[in-house]
Amino acid sequence: MDWRRWRHAVKLDPARPLDPEVVRGLATTGTDALILGGSDGIRREAVFHLLGAARATGLPVAIEVSSEEAVVPGADWYLIPMVLNTRDPRWLVGAHREAFQNLHRIAPGIPVPWDRVVTVAYVVCNPDATVARVAAAVPPAGPDEVAAWTTVAERLLRADIVYIEYSGRFGDPAWVGAAAGAMRGARLFYGGGIGTAEQAAVMAARAHTVVVGNALYRPGGLECIRATVEGARRVRPGEGGEPIAAGGRLP
Amino acid sequence: MDWRRWRHAVKLDPARPLDPEVVRGLATTGTDALILGGSDGIRREAVFHLLGAARATGLPVAIEVSSEEAVVPGADWYLIPMVLNTRDPRWLVGAHREAFQNLHRIAPGIPVPWDRVVTVAYVVCNPDATVARVAAAVPPAGPDEVAAWTTVAERLLRADIVYIEYSGRFGDPAWVGAAAGAMRGARLFYGGGIGTAEQAAVMAARAHTVVVGNALYRPGGLECIRATVEGARRVRPGEGGEPIAAGGRLP
Repeated sequence: MDWRRWRHAVKLDPARPLDPEVVRGLATTGTDALILGGSDGIRREAVFHLLGAARATGLPVAIEVSSEEAVVPGADWYLIPMVLNTRDPRWLVGAHREAFQNLHRIAPGIPVPWDRVVTVAYVVCNPDATVARVAAAVPPAGPDEVAAWTTVAERLLRADIVYIEYSGRFGDPAWVGAAAGAMRGARLFYGGGIGTAEQAAVMAARAHTVVVGNALYRPGGLECIRATVEGARRVRPGEGGEPIAAGGRLP
Repeated sequence: MDWRRWRHAVKLDPARPLDPEVVRGLATTGTDALILGGSDGIRREAVFHLLGAARATGLPVAIEVSSEEAVVPGADWYLIPMVLNTRDPRWLVGAHREAFQNLHRIAPGIPVPWDRVVTVAYVVCNPDATVARVAAAVPPAGPDEVAAWTTVAERLLRADIVYIEYSGRFGDPAWVGAAAGAMRGARLFYGGGIGTAEQAAVMAARAHTVVVGNALYRPGGLECIRATVEGARRVRPGEGGEPIAAGGRLP
């Protein structure tokens, strides 16, 4: 399924060990896609093996290219993150420039599959998350700031995806609603702290796509994923109060 | 004339005094357009008056919105600069986010004319230029780095214009050629140190559009502009060695 139609995705961190049975079980949870990505300690070898396991589920697989080590052939999509609210331009475009300059070393002889490249503009909202520390994020002061970042992402950077990232805790629905209200054609992703059907429904009523990560790594992870899929499918984007543009414009 | 077809443009700095006769005279130089913009000391009052004088020439007029003070209605285009090679994310997206958040104060009741907004990704190459100091630029180490920045601008930021900025001195044609070789559909602008027909021809053989600024402010400025227009029209983009994609994709 095309990333423009995902309602629910599971994020797998190549740096965290996971029972192969659990990865296999994802095929039966009803989720739309798997995203391989993490903020720290990504190693190519681990990405390679996790990609194999993820592909075996038959689900669409995206790799989030947060470091050169995540450049591994064979994914359906390559998500290129840019952190909007960072203090360090390295996380916006600097590391990307270096990577393009070093492509001959990173992926010798392999052309960039531009038709599989999807740009993702992050607004990192939880100051306690690893990603906030690693990427030197300055969390927004309120929903107005989230909306303004969304406009920057949509109109100036022309990002494919705007990603409201709370990584590690459940976010403020009003902030996600503010982003929804500023959307014009990109897809709105929400991630962070979703562990129940109710939580999934709250955010899926505001964002196009909800991403569940940590819940999978706890005991009963697959059941938990199933519940969040069910919760996300109970609602439609825009039901949460803020109307949202359809999203998923074609390139 | 649409900005996607300009071969030659004149940049007028609202912070620098200019004889109104000289502005009027620009109508007869053969240039394609006027760009109002500067790096420092921009005041709304001055932009407003210069816009009036520029409009009176009958030429297309763009305002480069490098500060909130440059938000003045009545231009054909609004160029939104983003400095790729900056140390300070404020010059990439930070000031832009603040401006979107403060629109109700900056331009009360006036909707953003999105169909006139043109995004410009700058690579600032002359470390001695005011823009380099003001925008905390880290000049590229060589043509490979310029090419990689161009790819970031084209593929990740989807900028309308990639602008190789030498402001104040004539640049290295090889660096502009490196940018040209990496173009895919955006327009390549070159600015800096063009004062003769020959200099204009060298850069117009590599970039889609050459921008002439300082030359206008010297004695005999209008004759000098005429010479650079003639030089730019002698050649075609791509004749300088590096082939270049046509540029000017429609939104």
